Amino acid sequence: MTAQAAYKNLTDHFARIGALRAVAGILGWDAATMMPSGSAEARAEQQAALDVAIHEKLNDPRVQEWLATAEGASPEAKANLHEIRRDVVHATAVPADLVDAFARATSESEMTWRTARAENDFAALLPKLRVLLGLVRDMGQAKAEALGTSVYDALLDQFEPGGRSADIDVLFADLATFLPDLTENVLAAQARRPAPLDLPGPFPVATQKALGERLMRALGFDFNRGRLDVSHHPFCGGAPGDVRITTRYSEDSFFPAMMGVLHETGHALYEIGLPQHHRGQPIGYARGMSLHESQSLLVEMQVSRSQAFLTFATPLIREAFGGSGPAWSVENLRAHATRVARGLIRVNADEVTYPAHVILRYRLERALIDGSLDLADLPGAWRDGMQELVGITPPDDKDGCLQDIHWPAGLFGYFPTYTMGAMTAAQLYAAAQAAVPEIPDEIAKGNFAPLLGWLREKIHGIGSAQSTRDILIAATGSPLSVTSFRRHLEQRYLHA
Amino acid sequence: MTAQAAYKNLTDHFARIGALRAVAGILGWDAATMMPSGSAEARAEQQAALDVAIHEKLNDPRVQEWLATAEGASPEAKANLHEIRRDVVHATAVPADLVDAFARATSESEMTWRTARAENDFAALLPKLRVLLGLVRDMGQAKAEALGTSVYDALLDQFEPGGRSADIDVLFADLATFLPDLTENVLAAQARRPAPLDLPGPFPVATQKALGERLMRALGFDFNRGRLDVSHHPFCGGAPGDVRITTRYSEDSFFPAMMGVLHETGHALYEIGLPQHHRGQPIGYARGMSLHESQSLLVEMQVSRSQAFLTFATPLIREAFGGSGPAWSVENLRAHATRVARGLIRVNADEVTYPAHVILRYRLERALIDGSLDLADLPGAWRDGMQELVGITPPDDKDGCLQDIHWPAGLFGYFPTYTMGAMTAAQLYAAAQAAVPEIPDEIAKGNFAPLLGWLREKIHGIGSAQSTRDILIAATGSPLSVTSFRRHLEQRYLHA
Repeated sequence: MTAQAAYKNLTDHFARIGALRAVAGILGWDAATMMPSGSAEARAEQQAALDVAIHEKLNDPRVQEWLATAEGASPEAKANLHEIRRDVVHATAVPADLVDAFARATSESEMTWRTARAENDFAALLPKLRVLLGLVRDMGQAKAEALGTSVYDALLDQFEPGGRSADIDVLFADLATFLPDLTENVLAAQARRPAPLDLPGPFPVATQKALGERLMRALGFDFNRGRLDVSHHPFCGGAPGDVRITTRYSEDSFFPAMMGVLHETGHALYEIGLPQHHRGQPIGYARGMSLHESQSLLVEMQVSRSQAFLTFATPLIREAFGGSGPAWSVENLRAHATRVARGLIRVNADEVTYPAHVILRYRLERALIDGSLDLADLPGAWRDGMQELVGITPPDDKDGCLQDIHWPAGLFGYFPTYTMGAMTAAQLYAAAQAAVPEIPDEIAKGNFAPLLGWLREKIHGIGSAQSTRDILIAATGSPLSVTSFRRHLEQRYLHA
Repeated sequence: MTAQAAYKNLTDHFARIGALRAVAGILGWDAATMMPSGSAEARAEQQAALDVAIHEKLNDPRVQEWLATAEGASPEAKANLHEIRRDVVHATAVPADLVDAFARATSESEMTWRTARAENDFAALLPKLRVLLGLVRDMGQAKAEALGTSVYDALLDQFEPGGRSADIDVLFADLATFLPDLTENVLAAQARRPAPLDLPGPFPVATQKALGERLMRALGFDFNRGRLDVSHHPFCGGAPGDVRITTRYSEDSFFPAMMGVLHETGHALYEIGLPQHHRGQPIGYARGMSLHESQSLLVEMQVSRSQAFLTFATPLIREAFGGSGPAWSVENLRAHATRVARGLIRVNADEVTYPAHVILRYRLERALIDGSLDLADLPGAWRDGMQELVGITPPDDKDGCLQDIHWPAGLFGYFPTYTMGAMTAAQLYAAAQAAVPEIPDEIAKGNFAPLLGWLREKIHGIGSAQSTRDILIAATGSPLSVTSFRRHLEQRYLHA
């Protein structure tokens, strides 16, 4: 077999794998939005059968033969081959019985977590989580050997290809040099200003949905290739070429659903902007979680809470809900959108205090993986860490170490990507405005094309053809640092 | 390997196949109800990848090894093994390149048909349909050799396991002895009565949907394991344990959507009532298309257009739409529900004239398959057949031989199951009432449990454990005949 023929066989094979993964994406969306509740058991069988089919294809012995011979002729083919190898390493490093045990343990631990959280009962979760953590370590060990990394970095690599904890340590240490003081100063400055005026509801769901769709269209979301629906936990899912985002509504306030829609729209624009001619090939996917989160946070945090965006959006918001008077001014909406508070819950945190929540989880999960923290001591370590990093102590585990699904779902190595995404978003938006200075003025007029054009060229259209680091250097001139993020927080919260 | 171990391997393997088929069902539902229009191309890749994965599993060489050794220990296992063999024969009889060519030709011919029908242009479809028909014949030939049947019977067997044209010929000949005169007499009797009073709209979609759901619940549809949505062509789809029906609404009349919902509910009750412990195994599926159609027509035709059902439903209909006066009487709604007319379009036909539409298609498709009718002569043969069998001549091909998607979609051997289903429905409902005489009175009170209980025991719960013929004999005491259907039509339309 020639090197070219082997490469062709690989791309044909991975096109099939990509299409089956797309099916899994649609199935996942359906389970969260449309599926009748009584169908969960049948659905679990369907998802398992699909996972097995994908896993079998990745473990097809011919893949190793093709990989031994294949060469990419073009730079794109070389990059795709690199990503195919990465995909295969992650899929084949772990023995099948460990994959099975992990799937079962995850499902049990996740199910137990739902009850344990509701009942504030960490002890109930502990044995399940202990089994799962053991398997996560074994998986990490197997992948670490294949990748030549530490166990934690092998886990991180699943979500953040090429990500290394040594780099994260530096970034998070840089954050620690200024975030505590900055948070103090922001809260003090905020306390000196009058509280924002109340925005009284109720806000009908249908109106909120129409407003969300109006903003999605303005940002460039193509409803011909995507949808907006409702789910308990908002997400961006579906499949390449068929991007489906969700939100959830409360009639008491329109802010959470609106900001949620804008956040997921940022994810969706990335997915929609991926190189279509590589659809289904490993090179055609989004690069990794930090870059993905950067796109949602760029839209939600950098853009949607800015003066420019609210200049555009406030009249639409007023019109939608029939609001008038000073409570419905740009300034008052902006005050709502940039309110800072120390809180217990990560997903409710503002962009100033959010990194502290992530740094806590990052510290704890590294200690859990390397064994220096025993799971039984997690609740105490969580309380201590919250006091140290966020400045408050949770009264219980429900709003403490039981609040997130990630660990019970087997996701270790995921948390740091949130804050890397926030820093990346700041760095990208600063670079975008430096390159295309009219971006904020155009946004104030409701024209997002200059921003979207820049993002498509620099981020979305590249897919996985380059590493996260190289993409960021090409787009912004430097690797990830805290500089832009710090400047952004200072400007918005101290100097505005 | 022991016979038991081989059987166990087969059932494990077919559980996976069944789960992947369920995924395909959810995907098909999504494509018709939820998918953004621009995602069709990506979806085609997904469906193809899934079809290939299923096909690969059916063609796994181990399946033949297991089949050579396996024996079923229980009667159920024996029946399941019989169905597994049937499944494998249909999947493996046709060479892979022919399967591929058929899939491509179907897709092209279906696409061309959409335009050709809209533009009344049979000539545009002819070359595509000719290619497809050739491939259908080749497939039929390959399956005929494997099954030991004629080519047409091999095609029929795909939709109606065990169905044979020799039996259909007898049944359709029996219909021909009385249907033309009966139709004449019904139309004459109808002409002597005053026309039904108009039911003036508009009928809001939301109200129609609520009414449909109300009736579905009454019939026994479990919304915990199914949904009602909207699609251009109504269907019952989804997956075992997750049954999803659709309808379409017009605000001008509530009858089509309501009767459509009731029809699909009949299909859905069959799916919901299949033996859950055999979910995914070949024995666990619905038996075939004639029995499936019998369930929809039993609900829609036998039950929902009866005096008993309308006694129950009329107050709900009146309440939903705020109707009052003589137009909203049970008698007037019944007159609407049992109106007979010779028409051009099969899907709009009443139960008296419907068989003539099917007999025409059955005749023509057999002639197309055996080569005695050339495709180029189809429009003329259609016009002549419509005049002879239905009594009117279509003014064009759009409402003539281009009206149905079946042939352009490669479905030859499907049409007769509609009328076999209508006859089966009549025979089953007669037997149900003979066995449980209170069924109509209970329906008039809105209690469908006696009927549903009988259907679950006699039909739904059996799955594919017996042949259609044996199921029918066990349920009604005799194989399929025209007797009950004839009696039903005479009673409802001549003696009522």
